[in-house]
Amino acid sequence: MKLYIGNQNYSSWSLRAWLIFEQYGLDVDIIKLKLFTEDFYNTLNQVSQNEKVPTLVDEGLAIWDSIAILEYVNETYLNGKAWPESKEERAIARSISAEMHSGFSCLRNELPMNCRAARHVEFSDGAVKDIARIDAIWSKQMEEHSEGWLFGEWSIADAMYAPVALRFKTYGIELSDKAKQYQQKQLNSAAVQKWLAEASLETDIVDEDEAGIPA
Amino acid sequence: MKLYIGNQNYSSWSLRAWLIFEQYGLDVDIIKLKLFTEDFYNTLNQVSQNEKVPTLVDEGLAIWDSIAILEYVNETYLNGKAWPESKEERAIARSISAEMHSGFSCLRNELPMNCRAARHVEFSDGAVKDIARIDAIWSKQMEEHSEGWLFGEWSIADAMYAPVALRFKTYGIELSDKAKQYQQKQLNSAAVQKWLAEASLETDIVDEDEAGIPA
Repeated sequence: MKLYIGNQNYSSWSLRAWLIFEQYGLDVDIIKLKLFTEDFYNTLNQVSQNEKVPTLVDEGLAIWDSIAILEYVNETYLNGKAWPESKEERAIARSISAEMHSGFSCLRNELPMNCRAARHVEFSDGAVKDIARIDAIWSKQMEEHSEGWLFGEWSIADAMYAPVALRFKTYGIELSDKAKQYQQKQLNSAAVQKWLAEASLETDIVDEDEAGIPA
Repeated sequence: MKLYIGNQNYSSWSLRAWLIFEQYGLDVDIIKLKLFTEDFYNTLNQVSQNEKVPTLVDEGLAIWDSIAILEYVNETYLNGKAWPESKEERAIARSISAEMHSGFSCLRNELPMNCRAARHVEFSDGAVKDIARIDAIWSKQMEEHSEGWLFGEWSIADAMYAPVALRFKTYGIELSDKAKQYQQKQLNSAAVQKWLAEASLETDIVDEDEAGIPA
């Protein structure tokens, strides 16, 4: 399998797909493309009908979009274990994952992922609401699974929220205690640490993702 | 089961979730809430942690967001048959469904679903690109499944694109022949016809979804 990703400093959707391979030690070649360059579009053009990262290619089959990749890998290589085992928890996990996938547009626009930079941004009421909702999701899950991931064991829902944990750190967002505990779980994980180490070696600047001023 | 939906004239995400029940004749109580009214928020507040439609409640378990509801119903009541059976087609179906779920923001913002109104809108280059991409997705699938739905049999991918078929009609968007053929399949389906008949009985106006001028 080949997983095409963007700059690790910036590409939050790439991180989400990458995490499932890292968490389960699945064999995959990572092909990193510099976002929005000619090479980026030319390469993706040849492998997929959609010129976006992440894209997974498995024996000639191209799968694009983070959630589709995560569902595919889970079904094909993990026998379903990347979602919670109970029907009820799986439904909630898919609900909050879908909520992240289609929502939180203020957060995503105003506080783009930028691993290397501690930044200060002014943000809208919409972003305040997004942050409060995410704090509530994390806190509620921590009440039920105090020791760890959103549903106890690591799941696709944790892949979906990993970039948010990074954003909340770099933009200095205050969280409630339980949400902060989950954020720490994410930031301390070996997989996220590995991503950050690799991101820190990058020097390219993508202007549209450079929000705010140095904190 | 109870499915909470918004105004049928406007709520494209509600239509997506509603369709799976209709297509398979699943037993569900539909509870229609007028979008963004006090009653809308008060009711959703009592059943779900997220104040959005669609929300499905199944024996006290709330599932929200269209794609999570569709996956849940498919897994719980349809034994998986609402996705294509082949692994490869299922991966593509999930990819284009995810693409619809998180993308096409210009299309969604500039051409909001409004079943009752033939409208003329000026739209951005971004919307032109969104329309071309959807035309390409539909055309490609019609090459492989000329007689019908995107993957032959009706699937969740068709639920995701149903509101787009309606938009392309009401806003008078020109499509290529193959894409138009798929649009007709959607518009002629009994389920979509039923939705439209119900929508046509509504008289409420939601200003933010009233784009453009009468065509």
